[in-house]
Parts: sequence; C-alpha cells; structure tokens
Amino acid sequence: MLSEQPPPRRRRIQPLDAMVSPRFGQVATFARLPHDRDLTDIDVAFLGVPFDDATTYRAGARVGPSAIREQSRLLRPYNMNVDVYPFDVLNVVDYGDVDVVPGSFIETAKKVEAVVATLLDHRVAPLVAGGDHSMALPLLRAVHRTHGPVHLVHFDSHFDFWDQHWGQRYTHGTWLRRAYEEQLLGQVLQIGIRGPQFTRDDFQYAADHGFRVVTLRELERDPEGTIRHALDAVPSDEPTYLSFDIDVVDPAYAMGTGTPEVGGLTSREALGAIQALVGHWLVGAELVEVAPPYDGPGAITSLLAANLLYEMLSVMAKNTSQGLPPPGGPEPRRDFGRVPR
Amino acid sequence: MLSEQPPPRRRRIQPLDAMVSPRFGQVATFARLPHDRDLTDIDVAFLGVPFDDATTYRAGARVGPSAIREQSRLLRPYNMNVDVYPFDVLNVVDYGDVDVVPGSFIETAKKVEAVVATLLDHRVAPLVAGGDHSMALPLLRAVHRTHGPVHLVHFDSHFDFWDQHWGQRYTHGTWLRRAYEEQLLGQVLQIGIRGPQFTRDDFQYAADHGFRVVTLRELERDPEGTIRHALDAVPSDEPTYLSFDIDVVDPAYAMGTGTPEVGGLTSREALGAIQALVGHWLVGAELVEVAPPYDGPGAITSLLAANLLYEMLSVMAKNTSQGLPPPGGPEPRRDFGRVPR
Amino acid sequence: MLSEQPPPRRRRIQPLDAMVSPRFGQVATFARLPHDRDLTDIDVAFLGVPFDDATTYRAGARVGPSAIREQSRLLRPYNMNVDVYPFDVLNVVDYGDVDVVPGSFIETAKKVEAVVATLLDHRVAPLVAGGDHSMALPLLRAVHRTHGPVHLVHFDSHFDFWDQHWGQRYTHGTWLRRAYEEQLLGQVLQIGIRGPQFTRDDFQYAADHGFRVVTLRELERDPEGTIRHALDAVPSDEPTYLSFDIDVVDPAYAMGTGTPEVGGLTSREALGAIQALVGHWLVGAELVEVAPPYDGPGAITSLLAANLLYEMLSVMAKNTSQGLPPPGGPEPRRDFGRVPR
Amino acid sequence: MLSEQPPPRRRRIQPLDAMVSPRFGQVATFARLPHDRDLTDIDVAFLGVPFDDATTYRAGARVGPSAIREQSRLLRPYNMNVDVYPFDVLNVVDYGDVDVVPGSFIETAKKVEAVVATLLDHRVAPLVAGGDHSMALPLLRAVHRTHGPVHLVHFDSHFDFWDQHWGQRYTHGTWLRRAYEEQLLGQVLQIGIRGPQFTRDDFQYAADHGFRVVTLRELERDPEGTIRHALDAVPSDEPTYLSFDIDVVDPAYAMGTGTPEVGGLTSREALGAIQALVGHWLVGAELVEVAPPYDGPGAITSLLAANLLYEMLSVMAKNTSQGLPPPGGPEPRRDFGRVPR
Amino acid sequence: MLSEQPPPRRRRIQPLDAMVSPRFGQVATFARLPHDRDLTDIDVAFLGVPFDDATTYRAGARVGPSAIREQSRLLRPYNMNVDVYPFDVLNVVDYGDVDVVPGSFIETAKKVEAVVATLLDHRVAPLVAGGDHSMALPLLRAVHRTHGPVHLVHFDSHFDFWDQHWGQRYTHGTWLRRAYEEQLLGQVLQIGIRGPQFTRDDFQYAADHGFRVVTLRELERDPEGTIRHALDAVPSDEPTYLSFDIDVVDPAYAMGTGTPEVGGLTSREALGAIQALVGHWLVGAELVEVAPPYDGPGAITSLLAANLLYEMLSVMAKNTSQGLPPPGGPEPRRDFGRVPR
Amino acid sequence: MLSEQPPPRRRRIQPLDAMVSPRFGQVATFARLPHDRDLTDIDVAFLGVPFDDATTYRAGARVGPSAIREQSRLLRPYNMNVDVYPFDVLNVVDYGDVDVVPGSFIETAKKVEAVVATLLDHRVAPLVAGGDHSMALPLLRAVHRTHGPVHLVHFDSHFDFWDQHWGQRYTHGTWLRRAYEEQLLGQVLQIGIRGPQFTRDDFQYAADHGFRVVTLRELERDPEGTIRHALDAVPSDEPTYLSFDIDVVDPAYAMGTGTPEVGGLTSREALGAIQALVGHWLVGAELVEVAPPYDGPGAITSLLAANLLYEMLSVMAKNTSQGLPPPGGPEPRRDFGRVPR
Repeated sequence: MLSEQPPPRRRRIQPLDAMVSPRFGQVATFARLPHDRDLTDIDVAFLGVPFDDATTYRAGARVGPSAIREQSRLLRPYNMNVDVYPFDVLNVVDYGDVDVVPGSFIETAKKVEAVVATLLDHRVAPLVAGGDHSMALPLLRAVHRTHGPVHLVHFDSHFDFWDQHWGQRYTHGTWLRRAYEEQLLGQVLQIGIRGPQFTRDDFQYAADHGFRVVTLRELERDPEGTIRHALDAVPSDEPTYLSFDIDVVDPAYAMGTGTPEVGGLTSREALGAIQALVGHWLVGAELVEVAPPYDGPGAITSLLAANLLYEMLSVMAKNTSQGLPPPGGPEPRRDFGRVPR
Repeated sequence: MLSEQPPPRRRRIQPLDAMVSPRFGQVATFARLPHDRDLTDIDVAFLGVPFDDATTYRAGARVGPSAIREQSRLLRPYNMNVDVYPFDVLNVVDYGDVDVVPGSFIETAKKVEAVVATLLDHRVAPLVAGGDHSMALPLLRAVHRTHGPVHLVHFDSHFDFWDQHWGQRYTHGTWLRRAYEEQLLGQVLQIGIRGPQFTRDDFQYAADHGFRVVTLRELERDPEGTIRHALDAVPSDEPTYLSFDIDVVDPAYAMGTGTPEVGGLTSREALGAIQALVGHWLVGAELVEVAPPYDGPGAITSLLAANLLYEMLSVMAKNTSQGLPPPGGPEPRRDFGRVPR
Repeated sequence: MLSEQPPPRRRRIQPLDAMVSPRFGQVATFARLPHDRDLTDIDVAFLGVPFDDATTYRAGARVGPSAIREQSRLLRPYNMNVDVYPFDVLNVVDYGDVDVVPGSFIETAKKVEAVVATLLDHRVAPLVAGGDHSMALPLLRAVHRTHGPVHLVHFDSHFDFWDQHWGQRYTHGTWLRRAYEEQLLGQVLQIGIRGPQFTRDDFQYAADHGFRVVTLRELERDPEGTIRHALDAVPSDEPTYLSFDIDVVDPAYAMGTGTPEVGGLTSREALGAIQALVGHWLVGAELVEVAPPYDGPGAITSLLAANLLYEMLSVMAKNTSQGLPPPGGPEPRRDFGRVPR
Repeated sequence: MLSEQPPPRRRRIQPLDAMVSPRFGQVATFARLPHDRDLTDIDVAFLGVPFDDATTYRAGARVGPSAIREQSRLLRPYNMNVDVYPFDVLNVVDYGDVDVVPGSFIETAKKVEAVVATLLDHRVAPLVAGGDHSMALPLLRAVHRTHGPVHLVHFDSHFDFWDQHWGQRYTHGTWLRRAYEEQLLGQVLQIGIRGPQFTRDDFQYAADHGFRVVTLRELERDPEGTIRHALDAVPSDEPTYLSFDIDVVDPAYAMGTGTPEVGGLTSREALGAIQALVGHWLVGAELVEVAPPYDGPGAITSLLAANLLYEMLSVMAKNTSQGLPPPGGPEPRRDFGRVPR
Repeated sequence: MLSEQPPPRRRRIQPLDAMVSPRFGQVATFARLPHDRDLTDIDVAFLGVPFDDATTYRAGARVGPSAIREQSRLLRPYNMNVDVYPFDVLNVVDYGDVDVVPGSFIETAKKVEAVVATLLDHRVAPLVAGGDHSMALPLLRAVHRTHGPVHLVHFDSHFDFWDQHWGQRYTHGTWLRRAYEEQLLGQVLQIGIRGPQFTRDDFQYAADHGFRVVTLRELERDPEGTIRHALDAVPSDEPTYLSFDIDVVDPAYAMGTGTPEVGGLTSREALGAIQALVGHWLVGAELVEVAPPYDGPGAITSLLAANLLYEMLSVMAKNTSQGLPPPGGPEPRRDFGRVPR
Repeated sequence: MLSEQPPPRRRRIQPLDAMVSPRFGQVATFARLPHDRDLTDIDVAFLGVPFDDATTYRAGARVGPSAIREQSRLLRPYNMNVDVYPFDVLNVVDYGDVDVVPGSFIETAKKVEAVVATLLDHRVAPLVAGGDHSMALPLLRAVHRTHGPVHLVHFDSHFDFWDQHWGQRYTHGTWLRRAYEEQLLGQVLQIGIRGPQFTRDDFQYAADHGFRVVTLRELERDPEGTIRHALDAVPSDEPTYLSFDIDVVDPAYAMGTGTPEVGGLTSREALGAIQALVGHWLVGAELVEVAPPYDGPGAITSLLAANLLYEMLSVMAKNTSQGLPPPGGPEPRRDFGRVPR
C-alpha cells in the first residue's frame, strides 16, 4: 500500500493537446507523449522492441512499434471504461525503442533486459510494444531482478511453452518454457487458447506445471467475468505481469499478426479482458506480435493495439489511484549499482 | 396519419432488374435507381454530400458517396428484416451530389441547405450519404424549416457537441452543439458512445442539456431492445431525424472511416439498431463518415453503408405502409416560394 | 457401422512436420499434405475446382483453391474443438485441381463429375475448395451416383435456387434448383439466409419444396444449438453432403467473396456450425466462393476457409473414430467399370 | 472528305464543369459526360462491355468499365498533345454498358454486336471500355456491317490469334483468328508483342497471314516514330479500328490486368502510340483488359485507361477537325432496317 | 560568397547511426535526425505542413509528413549523385509540423508563415514536406520577408495559376497566381506540364506573365540537360525557391498523390531534375502533394519523396561546400523583432 | 565445349500444358514444373531459400519463394528474347525449399550449402529464389566446392560488402565480404549501385579489391551494351555465378523488397541485363530479396522475379544449345562421397 505522500512533482507530462495541435500532425510518439529518456518523475515508459527474428511464421513485427505509435495518435485523456485519467495519475513518456540486434536473439535479449532493468531501477514500469513474443523472456528476467517471481497473465491463442523449433530454444513459441525453467514466474494464467494444436499433450503439460488454462471456448459466454474469476487465484497485491499477444483477438479485428488464428476475441472482449485486471498490481505489460505489413489500409490492428496498451496503462493508473502501489514499485530503490548496463 | 388516398402515380421508379442487367454493369447509382432531378412523384431522394474539410483526423470522406453508390449495386427489392418492398412503397431516385465547395464549410452548408430545402418543398425526404458529419447541421437546418424542431436519433462513438476545434466552430465534432444552439432539435438520443474521451465532463454536458446517452457498454447485451427502450421517450408520430456515423460500428466491420474507435457495434447490431426505428416517423436520414481510402479491397465499409441506408429506407417504407405519414410529409406543401434557392 | 477391421495400412500420410520444416516454406499444398494422385489407402482427397464463370457479381473465385492452399500452411495435427487428430484417423492427400474449362459450365461440370466419381469409386471422399457455387451441381451428381440421394446441409446467405439469371440455367445461384430437379437430394437444410432478397416468394418456394430454412436471425442467440436442433430432422447414419458458401460469414471475417452480405456469422459461429455436424455421416464437403482478389493483405478469408475445411475434415475423422462409416463409404466398391472417365 | 456543311447542332454536350462541380462529386460517368441513350446529334458513344468470362488467367475485367468511369473524373477539356478540344469537335455521351450475359460468350456477343450496330446506324462511333478482349470480335462484326473490312491496329503483348483454349473457340486469346476467318479485317498491325511465348511458330503464323508485327523490342528506341512508320502501310482515309489491350503497357504502370507481362510500354510511350494514329480515320476504338481487383489503391491502371480512351477520342476529334470524315461515318445511313435489334 | 570563417560549431547534428540502431527502430523523424526546436547552430529545418483542405480532388496529403518521415529511415549519409555528405556540411533537424487549422486556409497560412519566418530569422532554411500545394503561398510570403522576391523553380504537371475554384481564391491550384499578384516572385520556371488541360489559354497566360514553361514532352529526350538549360535564365547567386509537386512524377512511381497525371517523370528523371539545381542558391524547398492513403503497401511514393527531399538538401549542401551562401542566408539577421510570432 | 553426345534421356520434363490445364489451376510450382526431388536427368533445379533473418530493414523475404512460384504460372515455353525453348534444352524441376532454421544464419547456411552441394554433385545447377541476400554465401560455398572460384556478376543497388551490422558478421549486407575473405570468387562485377550511401569510402574499397563497379548512372544510356562491355573482363568459358538482388530494379517495378532504392532499372532494362549474359557459362543463379508483403495486389514484383528467373534459365539453355557446357557442369562427377550431407 502507498502509505506516504508522493514527493511533489517537478514536472507534469501530458500528451499534445488535440484541440491545439491536430492529431494527424507532429512526430509520432505513443499517445503523442514526449519522446524522452530522462526518467525523472516518470512512472511508466512506453518502450518499443522491434525484433521479429524469433517468429515461426509471418515476419513483420519489427515495424510494430512504429505502426502502433502512428495509430496511437487517436488516444484521448479520459478512459471511460475504468473511469480514470491515466496521464493525470501517472507520468508517462515514450522512451523510444531498444536498439535490437536483428538476427540475434541472444544479443537483443541482453539489450532488452538492460534497458528494462534501467527503467525498473528508476521505479519506472515498462509498457512494451513488440516485436515478437520471444522478448517476453528478457522482459521477465528484468522484472524478476526487481520484483522476484511475478504472476503472469498471458493472453494468447497459443501456449508458447514448446521446448524448441528446429533446434532453436529461443523463439516466440518457447519463451514461456524458458521463463518457467528460469523460475521467473509465480502463478501462470493462459487465456484464449484455441485453434488447431500440435498435440493434445500440451494441455497435460499445462496442467502438470500448474498453468491455469482458459480456452477461448470457456470464455465465450462471459469473457470478462470468466477472466475475473480465473484471476481470483492471483493475489491482487503481488506483482503481476501482463503479456498480451494480439493474436488472441480474431483476425477480423487484428489481421496484422504473424500467426493468426480464426475464432478469437472481438475487440470489445479484448478490452474487457484487460479491464478485468483492475485491482491487480501490474508491474509491467506488453502487447506483442503486431505485424503491420499484414494489416489493411485502415491499420486497424495497430489501432487496436494502441487502445489495448492505453487500457493497460489505465489499469495501472486506476490501481494507483485506488491505493495499490504505483506500477514502478512502492519505494525508491537503493541498489542502482546492481544492474549492469 | 395518412387519411386520404394518394393521387394515382404517374410513374413507377424501380431499380434496374438484376435478372436482366447484371449488377456489376451500368453506371453506378444508388441501388441502381435512376439518376434523376425530376422530383415529380418522388418520395425519397438519395443525395450525396461529398465534403470532408471539417474532419479532424483522417480525410477521404469526400469520396464516400461515390463508393457507396458502387457498393449499393448488390441491394435487392425485398427487405426480409422488416418485411417490406421499399421501392414498391416509395418512389426513390438518386438525385446526385450537392456541388460542394471544398475548403469552405460556410459555402457548402448553404448549398446543402438549399438543395435539401428543395427536396422537402417537394415532399421528398432526404436519404443522405456523406461526407463528414459537419453537414448534419445544414441538413437539420433545412429539415427544421419544414418540420420545425425534430427529434434526433444519433448513432456515433463520439459526442460531437464540442464547442470548437482549433478555434473552428464548424467541424464534424461541433455540429450537434450548433444545432442545439440554433434550436433545431427536439429530443436528442445519442447511442454508441465509447472509447477514449477528451473529458469526463462531456457526460455531464449531455445530462445538463437533456441528451439521452446510451453508451456502447449499455448496448452490449441487447442492442436492439435497449435502443427500442430508449426510443420510448421519442413520440413516434413526431418528425424524427436519423444521423448515423459509421464509426459507431467496429473498425473490423467499418475500417473505412476517419476517426475509428475500437470496440464498436457489429454489422448485425447496426442493422438491428436501425430496425428499432420502425414505428418512428423518419423525415430524413443520413449515413456519414465513410472514408473509402481507408477501406480494404473488399470495400466492406461502403457495402455496409449501402445496406444501412437501405435499412433506413426500409424503415421509412414500412412506416408508410403501416399508416404513418410518408417520409416527405403528410400533405402537399403550398409555400414553395418561401425557400431561397 | 464399421463392423470389420480395416485392412492394414500400407502407407501413413502426414503433413510436413512444422518443427522440422518451417510452415512458410515448401510448395503450398492443402495442410502441407502430399500432392498425390495415387488413391491407394486414401480416405479423403482435397480437390480444387478453380471455376468462377458462373458468378453473378464479383469474379475471382478461380484463384480460391490456390489461396486456400497457401493459408492452410498454419493448420496443425490436433483439433481441440472436436478432440481428434484428423490425419491420424484418415489418410488425406491434396489431389490437385480439376482442369476446368473457363467459359463453359457444361464442359467443366463434366470434368468435375468425372474426377469426383473417380475419387468415390476408390472410396475416397471429396473435400472440395471452390471456385464458385455452381460446381456443387456436378459434385452432387457424382455423389448421387455412389450414394443415391444425399441430405444437403447448405450454409449460405443466399437461397441459390433461382431458375435462371439472364436466361442462363447454370449459375452459382441456380445449382440447388437443378439438383432438386435432378432428384439428387434428400433432406435440404438451408442455414444463414439473410440480407436484401429478390422476393418474399423465395421463402414460400423453400417451404413448398420441403427445404428447411434457418435464417441468420434465427441463429443469432445460439448458432450451434439451433443448428443441432435443425439437424435432428436429418438421419445421422444416412449420407450427408455439406455445402458451405463462405458468404454465410460476415464480410468483416470474410471480405474475399463474390457476393458479400453484411450481418453474417462470426468466425466462431462458423466453426461451431460445422462442429454441429459431428455424428452425421458426411460423405463429402465443399467450401466455395472464396474470391482472393477481394481479400485483404492478411488473407484472412482464405485462412478462415482453410480452417473451416479442416473442421469439416475433423468432423469426418471424429465420426469415423466413433463408429460411423468412413467418409468414402462403408465397403470396397466393386463396380469401377460403371463410371465413365 | 467532308464536303458539305454539317447540319446545325440541336444540342451541345459537355462534361460537367469542374470549376463549378468538384470532380470527385456526382454520379460517375465517362469524363463526367451525360449518361444518355438518345443518340441524336451524337458522334461518339462511350460504351462499357463488362464481360470477363473469356479470360484465360486472372478474372476481374468485368468491373473495368465501372473503374474507368470513376477514374475518368480527372479528364479535362483540352488535349495539349494533339492540340484539340475533343468535346467541342465531337458530341460524346456515356451510353452505359451492354447488359452482358455472364457465362455465355455467344449470348453476350450477340448483344454487343446489336448495341454497336445501333450506334453505327446512327453514325455514332463506339469508344469501348472492356471487359476482356474477346469482345473485339462482336465489335468488329458490327463495324464490318457498316464499313466492310477495316484495318486493325492492335496494341497488345500477346498475339491473340490462337485457335482455341481447352477446346474453347471464343476466348480473349482467339478473337483475332475468328475475326480473320470471318474476313472482317483489312490490314492487321500488331504492336507490342513481347514476353514468354507459347511457340516460335506464332511469328510464322503472323507472317503467313500478312499481319505486320512490331515487337516491343523494335519499339524501344522510338516508339511513336516506329509506329508511325508501320502505319504507312495503312491507307489513312480507309476505316481503321483501334484495339488496345492495356497489357501492352508495363505492369508498373498497369498492374490491374488479367495477363500482365513485364517489360512493356511506359505510360508516355502508350500515349505516344495512340497519338501516332492522328491522320488515320478511326471508326471505332476499344481499351480492354483492365482488371481493377489487381490494381493498387491509387487505381492507376484505370486512370491510365481513362487517359488512353481520352487520347483515342482526341485523335478522332483531331482527324475530324482536319477534314477526315467524322468517326461515325461520312453520311447519314439509309438502311436502318437492316440491323436486327 | 562566404568570405569569413563560420563560427565554431557548438554542436554537430547527425542522424542515428544505422550500424548501431537498426533503421526500422526508434521514433520516426526525418532522416532519423533529432526532433528539436532549438535552432542554435542549425542550417536547415525539416518542417511538415499537414494541411490538405485546399485540394481539389483526392484528399489525404495531411498525412504526407508523417509518411515521409517513416520512409526517410532508409536515407544514408553520403550522396553519390552530387558527391556530398549533406549532414556534415549542414546541421539539420526535424522541427516537427506546423499546427495547422483544418478547414481554414487563412488561419493555417498565418501559422505557416509565422513558423517559417521564425526559421528564417535564425538563418535556418526550410525544407518542407506537404501537405497540399496551397501552402507554397505562405511559405513564399515568409521567404519574401527575408529575401525579397525569389526565383521560383516549380516542378508540377499542373500550372497552378488559376484564379479560383468554385469561388475559392486559395486552393492548391491558385497559389501561384496569388504569389504572383503579391509580387513575391522573380523568375518563374514551370517544368513538367502535361496531361489534359482546362484550356489552351493557360499557355498564353504563362507566356503573358513571363513564366518559362517546359512541358513534359520537351523534357523527354534529356530531362536534366533541358532543365539546366532552362535554368540558365535564373541568376545562380540570387535566392531561389524550389517547389516540387510529386505529381510531376508518373503515377507508376508516385501513385500516392491527389491529382495524378499519367505520362510523367520517372524517378531517375526526377532525381536528375533536382540535381540540375546544383549551383543555384536554394533558400528553401518544398515537396508537396504526397497523399499516402493512395500509396501502395510498399509506400514507394513516400519513399521517393524522402529521397527527393534528401536530394534537395544535398543540393543545398553541395552549394554551400562550393562557396555559395548557406541556404539560411549569408549573414546573421539583426531584425528579429520584426516578425510577429 | 561439349564434345560428346549426351546420353539418351530417360525422361522429358515439361511444364503443365496451359492449353489443357488453365494456368490459374493446380498446385503452384515454379513455371508449373513437377515438384520432384529425383535428380535423375535433371539439369537445373529451382530451389527456394525462404530465409529473411539477415535483413537489415523490412522483413518478409521468407515468403518470396512461395510468391514467385505463384506468379510463375504465367511463364510459357518459348523465350523470344534469346530465341530458345529452355525446357526443351534443359530438364528443370522444382526441388522445393531448403528447410531453413529461422533465427539462425549459421544453421540455415549449413543446410543451404548441403542441399546445393547435393544438386551440384548430380550435375544439377541451382536456380535459386530467396529469401534474403545473405544466403548467397552458402550458395557460393557450395558452388566453390565443385567449380572452385567463380566469377560473380552481382546486380544490386547496394555494395553488400560491409564488415558487420550491429556486430553481426552475417547479414544480407556482408555476404560479399565474407565470400571474398573465403576466397570463393574470381572476377567480381557489381552493377546498378545507386542511392544514398553510407560512405564514399565504399567505392574505394571496391577499387582496392578489384571489384568492377558499374553504377546505375553509368548504365542509363545503354544498359545492355554497358553490361556486355563490362562482361568482357569475365572469361566466357569459366564458371560464372549470377546474383540478382531485385532491388536493383526501381520500386515502381519492384516495390516488394526489403531495402528499396528509388531511381533503379526498369523491367525492360533488367531483362536486358540478364540477356547480356548469353555466352557466359552460368553455373548457378539466384534472385533474392523479393518481400511479398510489400508488393501490391497485382504482385508485380513476384511476377517480375519469375520472369527474371526464366530469363536466367533461358541464358543457361541458350548457352548449352550453343556449345557451352550445360549449367550443371561438363561431365559426370565421380566424387559423390566427398560431400557431407
């Protein structure tokens, strides 16, 4: 709980005012926030991870962060769904992208971990746009450094806990097994599983390892309620990480992704799914697998992604306004020297 | 109520017969109806208003009327949803477009008002395809001349009652405040509001001014029923105007629009929403904000728009067949000289 | 019922292993199965019918089979919806396409009938990708040769039983009347009818001829349950043919089709609709009217089509595993000489 | 030569004035001319032939006329290339489309021939937008009725004189052989042949039948000059018909076509090629094989097609202004009864 | 001539290093330069003017600056065409966009003029991306304040000197007449005129007013040489402004524009056309009329625009390196107070 | 020279006959050739390498082979440019794709080298479709095993001889340096260099290492002649390898590529460039960097790529027919055991 008064703010970060500066103008940053690497007074940093070399099907997620920024121009200050002004509660900046190393998961993962560790050292929570899902691994590694094992709420149409593809241990389909093996995780909740599967055994694997699986079919009647119910198993005041693969949404709403599966969530259901996290202490969140080359002229996948990230941010803000610790953590960190950069 | 026999028709207007002339052929007019400016015996005129200079985000609605005509080729004579043959009950023509004045809201608004006044003087109801939403203002002005204040049923994801953008009083987001200030309106019903908002105060503004707001979330469980219930407040035999912004529909179904908001109506819900108006005397209707450059190769936004316009027309026809006045008005007007043209 | 042991298999057909050969690679065949015309030991053959000269609106379905193959790369071995490994239960190959005769329905129909008769003579059930819907007629003719009248489960937004278009008796809108006239059919169930109609009389025609019509509106609340209920009238152990026009699905999910109708099924509902057929002896199935030139960059219509075909195949496999005859027929045929080829 | 004064015109046909009515507005007709079937005082009629069932590769040309009309909105009154105001010299209308019979070349050809014969009976020259190239045959039949054998200037990347495809004698690749067999032609000039060929023998066939072939390679250095030189063999005061297949242009400039061949003309060269016909009495002209579904968002193929048709019309106008007979013929016809309609 | 040593630079501005930071990553600014409004030590500022309400045909140029920034990621430090490292010679920043006022040319023009005047007051030359061509007027007004009448090199397929459209005096087709009337211009050179024209009289208008017109046809044989020759009339050491309308390029290379004209320059010719300006003192340059919604998936129009802007910048740099004054002007200005901001 | 009679062929491989089987039908293989891994009697194998993890900008080349196969349906038996029937002279099959290892250049390169070595061991020349350019390295390694150092004719807009990107030594921009370092090459000819460069020093690097560079500008006047002249330095009877990066072509003709550069070759020039190689003993050829997600609806980049591969094959066939050794090598190899597979 946040027991003491926050220190007086030295600066207030706000998006460009759409009533002064038309939203189609100016350099594209997330939500038209400042692009800034000064973390003073910042609570949340939008961060792009333009890496897609760990995809197993369609490539293109490397331009996801850029497309999401472009479509985030339409976001506005007040979230009526969870009744919060996220940019009033939290100071948010667009931190830019990690300088990834195309062709090397290993090198890129090091860089991602280092950047996110820097954020967390400053009590800044990461709000990440991928890029492919493999980068959840270094993100979780960095989060683990600060918070220890975190609960994982994982929206996806795929399990992502395979051991390898073609002998490769690090792909967008194996990050969860690696994270599990590295003991980075607390409770694991997988929501939205559907579509043709490699094997029925995957359900057994999930059960054997204590992953709670909510298939798409289980969600159909009452997505938000079902998710809230499943979240009951996750202690609400313990650090939770949200990993949202856009392919949990149906291709009609999100065709711009690398491994689309028909029969998914609608956009309303996807928004509701994130709103279900109000009350759970989110210490980081990611939206991955947007592949803009497969999006249509209206760029609706990136637009949805921008809105989902805004919803995640709003959950963080709502939580903070209701007395949960801020997403970046409850108190100033003292151990900045620990993190290699 | 229609108490006397209509005069014998001198002409019967019908779409081209698809069983003789394939629907992909011939010059594209709305529903393959005649393009005609002779208003004799006409009940409803399809009218395009290809203006988009009052948009605040993506442009392109100027080619909306053209694209809607093209996709309206697929419409057929019988509406099974409301059980009516609209072209048998009402004589409908494609009146063409208003010759707008790009770059000038003021000059265009004058032209739109004049053209629609001409239609109404001939007891012809306007069925309008935009163009951006700003043109609702001159449309309501013209309707007001004939009918006095009209009830407004407004489908939209946005409130559209802001005072100005960048000092501009006439935009696609301010027309409703202007119409209210000009006392053109009776009851106002706003349906479908959702997405990130500029401010929470807008809900208060609506309440303060007596606008009934039905948010998207309120609609989710039973859209048609909820709308019918909300319509109870609108006297069914008083003139009602329908303003339908295509962005009330989800971008998956209508990506071709200027200010898309995720989480909207499905196409089935949108059709049902219009069908809910059966029994309410519609004296005019508009479908606005279709921006074809952002539509996909299948042109499904324009196709949906054409179907929604057909549904509006069918409501008008159903009403007429059930004893409500025809959409153009209950009796011949005598005061043609009053309207400046 | 399958009363005797199947003969020992000489070969086991499986898709390429995605864990060895990435799914975006290698020549595109349906589900990455072998392209093979040797029917030995085969239970089901995927067959393309790239004909679109009987379309009445947008052309392009001729490239449907090719696009569906391309998108079927994503299919995987286990169907969690109906709990079956279809490629373990049934041997399936990609038989290639019929060499159609563009411009001639008559010549093409002869070829289609001959090819499908060959398949059926070998106890191989056809799993067909169109092409336009007109080819259901020669398909049903071939099926009738082997099985006699078959029950028809027909998903579509259109009735398809008109007598002619422009004097043409063979179009994608008349095949059902021809099939009825030729007495190829048992029970006829038409599911998904919606949108503007040519005439109210069509409903009477259906009723007069004993066709059970389930409109889209009747489906809305509980699609799968409604369909299961309607299927009660179809004896489950009698040969049934499934004809699925992709336009029964909403254009948001399936814009790539020739005669799109707004207000259709979602992808989840479409999958459920096919799953409702578990327990009915499917002796053939087709997915028609995919028109890839009108699909978007994500090719989601073809992707959905591939998944729907996979679902049909899974129903066949599930049935077989539960004791119904295999889709190709209960016993070896003895009369190969009967069929002209 | 035109030796007598033309009768006083009763009407003057002009496109809508772009300075009054913005070009993106109003119903789309060719060059924004009136859509009219009254042939009184008309010299040239734009006519669409939306037939594509004789294509051998990609379909979609059926929506060519519609797309060309849409893009022809940009045309203006003065042609600076040949220094003429075509709409001042000639009265031109948009006659609409032939009501084709999809699926039947034979029935459609009859209709096309009848419509064009009607035009020619009224001394109205056809300016035709396809549709596929097969319709050149009925067009030439109709032209032959009035003018006897005509010289043919044929721009194409393909020979189009094959005997059949798949047993079909009437395709977009056989019309020229049929026209030759039916003795409809005088001199034949084939310009632009290139790309992979079926056989070297086709060049021999051309030579054996007296067709003058100018390959693309021969054109490269000086397209307009080479064409002018080749045209020397065609008597300039004898009726000449121009058949222009858009695929003679490179796919970079005209990707929206059914059988694209790389290495073709640029747009400048294509315009020059048509300008080379100034001085030759054009009695009809066609632009075929525009397949809009394969065009990009800018619709540049249709835009080019509209400009090429405008260039053809300008050649007709220039010729008329320089003393050649008008394109519809030198004197009133007396034998209207001869043509079956 | 630059006779004295430049003062020591306090900062060196360089694009992000592509060998460290992959070009698809990080916030999109022009050429990956810093987005900065501090004009200290700056020579050239990239400035977006996202206004398109003065277009007479297709809208969409408002998102031109954003799309050009995105595609400018590919630019590199060394220009081999004119042998210069532009970012070594000149300090360049991305200044962001003018906050335009959609719907109002007047208000927007004031803002554009003020921003550009600010740049020029700081001896910073504007490198502008439109937006529609109407904004050349306020740009020239601002340039005139500093430099007096400037020579205008105007690449376009249209004359742009009409008096009005629909009564509107300020459109993208009238700016040149206004600029002429306001006596902002020295020599005027119009290059690339082609396509259907409103009237032959426009050529006379140009001649009467001393505008040198080089039609596209005159350019065909040797574009760069012809342009160099035409430039002989422009004194090389007097301030010259370059206005480049992307529609001077052929739609095959630049389909993403509002008023495309077939038969235009190739990309090689367009690059050569700009290179021809080496040796002429460029004090400002603009690239206008890129309309991204009409561009294809490869965004090649925006890519070409980015390269053309780079070529303009390179000309400025080359000139500076060869002893011409820097583009911002030869000496520090003293009269900062004169400009209203 | 080939001094002895070839052994009698046991089989004749031909594409499917388009006059029997329409080209839009059947499973897509290169040029509609058989998909076969039996190398008996085969001279050339089409091989796809769907790898794109070494791209430095836009991804997507992994689906290049699939898209090129699809567009190669249009190829025909006779090449009029070089006067040869390639499929009569050479037996060609579609060998399928290498099973690449996404994410690992090293593992993929091993596989590519092994597959190509197998081909060469059977005297089968590789005709390769990429994938990104990095795979030229294992291709050259395999070719070197059989032929020793080969001359390299390299069409590209980029040098591709950088030492590393982001510390990665194996990218699509470094393969040439690696190949040089590994001494795999004889003469190196780089044709088409253009666009913004990283540094002027690259030209010096080329000169220092004996690479002959022909910039795009040098090519402009007479591409084919200039290339033939440059090829004079390459002994015509020594093994030569052709590496063609599609980005040497202008984006108007080939927008579907990962690193497009404006100002490139036209399609005619590109075809001529390859034809210039007639007379040079081609022992392998590759066409790389086609990125279909960035191609337009007409897929013209893939179409051009298919034609360029056909032109390469035709050069091989023409050479063989004129007495040069067949592309797979002059005599049966004896040392099959040497190659590890």
